Amino acid sequence: MNAPRRTIVVVGGLAAGPSAASKAARTDPGARVLLFEESDAVSYGICELPYFVAGEVPERDLAVHTAESLKREKGVDVRLLHKVESIHPGTRRVRVRNLQSGLVFDQSYDRLILATGAHPRRLGIPGEDARNVFHIRTLDGAVHLEKLIGQERPRRAVIVGAGYIGVEMAEALRSRGMDVTMLDTQRLPLQGMAEPAREGVLESLTRHGVTFKGGEGPVSIAAGADGTATHVLTPHASYPAEVIIVAVGVVPNTALAVQAGLRVGRSGGILTDHTQRTSVDTIYAAGDCCEVRNSITNNPVYIPLATIASRAGWVAGTNAAGGRARFDGALRSVAVKVFECEAVRIGLSESEALEARFKPVSQTIVAQSRVGMMPGSKKLTVTLIADRASGRLLGGTLFGEEGAVLRAHALAVALQQRLTVDAFRTTDFAYAPTFSPLWDPLLVAANALSRELHPTDRP
Amino acid sequence: MNAPRRTIVVVGGLAAGPSAASKAARTDPGARVLLFEESDAVSYGICELPYFVAGEVPERDLAVHTAESLKREKGVDVRLLHKVESIHPGTRRVRVRNLQSGLVFDQSYDRLILATGAHPRRLGIPGEDARNVFHIRTLDGAVHLEKLIGQERPRRAVIVGAGYIGVEMAEALRSRGMDVTMLDTQRLPLQGMAEPAREGVLESLTRHGVTFKGGEGPVSIAAGADGTATHVLTPHASYPAEVIIVAVGVVPNTALAVQAGLRVGRSGGILTDHTQRTSVDTIYAAGDCCEVRNSITNNPVYIPLATIASRAGWVAGTNAAGGRARFDGALRSVAVKVFECEAVRIGLSESEALEARFKPVSQTIVAQSRVGMMPGSKKLTVTLIADRASGRLLGGTLFGEEGAVLRAHALAVALQQRLTVDAFRTTDFAYAPTFSPLWDPLLVAANALSRELHPTDRP
Repeated sequence: MNAPRRTIVVVGGLAAGPSAASKAARTDPGARVLLFEESDAVSYGICELPYFVAGEVPERDLAVHTAESLKREKGVDVRLLHKVESIHPGTRRVRVRNLQSGLVFDQSYDRLILATGAHPRRLGIPGEDARNVFHIRTLDGAVHLEKLIGQERPRRAVIVGAGYIGVEMAEALRSRGMDVTMLDTQRLPLQGMAEPAREGVLESLTRHGVTFKGGEGPVSIAAGADGTATHVLTPHASYPAEVIIVAVGVVPNTALAVQAGLRVGRSGGILTDHTQRTSVDTIYAAGDCCEVRNSITNNPVYIPLATIASRAGWVAGTNAAGGRARFDGALRSVAVKVFECEAVRIGLSESEALEARFKPVSQTIVAQSRVGMMPGSKKLTVTLIADRASGRLLGGTLFGEEGAVLRAHALAVALQQRLTVDAFRTTDFAYAPTFSPLWDPLLVAANALSRELHPTDRP
Repeated sequence: MNAPRRTIVVVGGLAAGPSAASKAARTDPGARVLLFEESDAVSYGICELPYFVAGEVPERDLAVHTAESLKREKGVDVRLLHKVESIHPGTRRVRVRNLQSGLVFDQSYDRLILATGAHPRRLGIPGEDARNVFHIRTLDGAVHLEKLIGQERPRRAVIVGAGYIGVEMAEALRSRGMDVTMLDTQRLPLQGMAEPAREGVLESLTRHGVTFKGGEGPVSIAAGADGTATHVLTPHASYPAEVIIVAVGVVPNTALAVQAGLRVGRSGGILTDHTQRTSVDTIYAAGDCCEVRNSITNNPVYIPLATIASRAGWVAGTNAAGGRARFDGALRSVAVKVFECEAVRIGLSESEALEARFKPVSQTIVAQSRVGMMPGSKKLTVTLIADRASGRLLGGTLFGEEGAVLRAHALAVALQQRLTVDAFRTTDFAYAPTFSPLWDPLLVAANALSRELHPTDRP
């Protein structure tokens, strides 16, 4: 007698959902894996949307998977334009609305995986809903923006929020020939990175004609007679714009989870254990709707990044299908291209370290990306943070025109393995004059930090 | 009453010597630090010599330090053209010959640091001493070669040995417009790297017009009436050349050490403990004259690389001056640029793993260096090797046009910390579409290897 066929239902089709569904189907090839997505597209390159807006990546290339390819290659039964309206854990059913037919039906499951993602945080100010104000998060939104740029040839853009998405959008809109002004309540762009890198990013933005207004947030958006936004108003000034981008972070989509009685954390994200199981036994969750455990502090935190969504989805899919996998935590690893520069941070910032009751001590060094005498060598700024008491590395930021992001991979391993500065600084990195100096900038920074940690121990 | 001033004598001025001397002077600012170097130059960029020959780096830029700058900036008293002829450990003296005056004198020391380096391995075949046969190792040799190229406009070069120096020289000579033929007894270039990378290197060499003859070694070098070499003869063919480069490895310079009775290892390199102390209490050694401990096997091995020389010199200098430092071992981390490609290996090769009694299992994956849809993305080949019994990572090779060498930094940390594949593969690397795919190629390779290690454990 065969075991009954397991039904795994996945809600959400962007990043964590397809990852979870594919992995579930692979883990238990006999399972029926159903994925419901309320929009008309799955699995597209959300991280590549700024490059689509810039005109560097065509729309057709943005699809990572289609409903058809997920079915064919991964064995996942995808239902587009299907909105899951409620979850009934007691009877293991979800209520689903077919948005095309309007039909509502119940779907039973053995295991449910929530990958409902996040939506853009709103400013909550007047004028935010004008047709030329964009809270970029979806393919649809990006397509609208790109179309507007092509048709209306806007000259001026205001970007509210200088996080990594704001910075990427600034570059994209500059490349489309627009005047760009960025507003941020912080004094410098890219909160969370070390200050020397943030200053470098500001310099790079300015050098490329982006106007950055720090310490300044919008209070309203003014519109003309036809309802089209025309100005962003702050307490200090009024900035005219034909396009306004709001990029001030995202908020987890947890309405379904809350309705189903799942526990959520301080940030509002769904809480899971290291198997991605929620507070209800048969329900898993992954991606931007969830909190994850910070590898350094062990605290649950909200880190909405595609890398984490994809990995956590993999873990949720494995476990929901009867396999065994664990999510080992996240480091808040963020990389961003800023015109010709790279900026990356991994691990805790100084303020996060203080909050987690470490005693952070940091050092910043400026080195060359290659042997200084070699053509093409660039300046690289490295900041490392450690805990004074234990000597443990806590985080780092790298910034420069070459070799910042991939160098930070080494830091990611060190942080995830909880290495001390002294263990890290003896690493035997590969070297050739065209790739790095004889003493890699990471080692120079680690040696400087080690001297700071052991001030009396002269060598 | 003041303690008597410590005298630290360093023999050798290229890489480990200046590193050791500088660090000794910094560790004990009261010490007298003397460095004897038999040539007329110290501390130049030996790794950059191929780029000097290519004409990319001018000769004046090759100097990392001069005798004067080492004195002024580091407090090291440098004596050029001074050859140490013998060591007398019983009385803590070295006998030194001033090569300019011919004068011989004795210099006493409290601690002696040997950094006598290595010399090129010779083929031991007839014709090897012709004036147009170069065993590149010194600034002097490179200057002679560069001058010959400029004056005699040679058309054809033969390079014997396709290790990383041979490959770098091939590129340099091609850029000077010469026809280049490489001979190697191995079937493929860059022994020690994984086979897929070696095939890629061969393809790159060939694409750039370098003729590679594998499985073929020279038996003699023929010369014309004036003693100038004209052909390299192998059992199969005769290769005409106006310039011949021999790059078949190096041999540690240990005549002084052996005369002083220091223990040497199987490779002929001086044996030291983890403080770089030799078998004689008051004598330290560092750099290409030494063996080092392999971090993975714990065995003493010979790895003549500038990175190791510099770090080991630092450790020797610290300890000789009364400080405390340890050399934590080396991974045999080798990086090389091959025209537009990068190749890097870290840790053990499969044959080294077998020799060290591991049970190596390896996986090779081909991925993209960036998100595939992004402009500029290149193919990247990653091979990882692990031990079947323990699941420990043992080594890896990366090859591609972008992002190979710096990515390998992460592997260096993992190998030095003796991580298993399963610990490594959950690392939370930073990602942005312009720098890497969502799943970094390192993680793709580690996941493939993990599946190979746990074949029954389906997920």
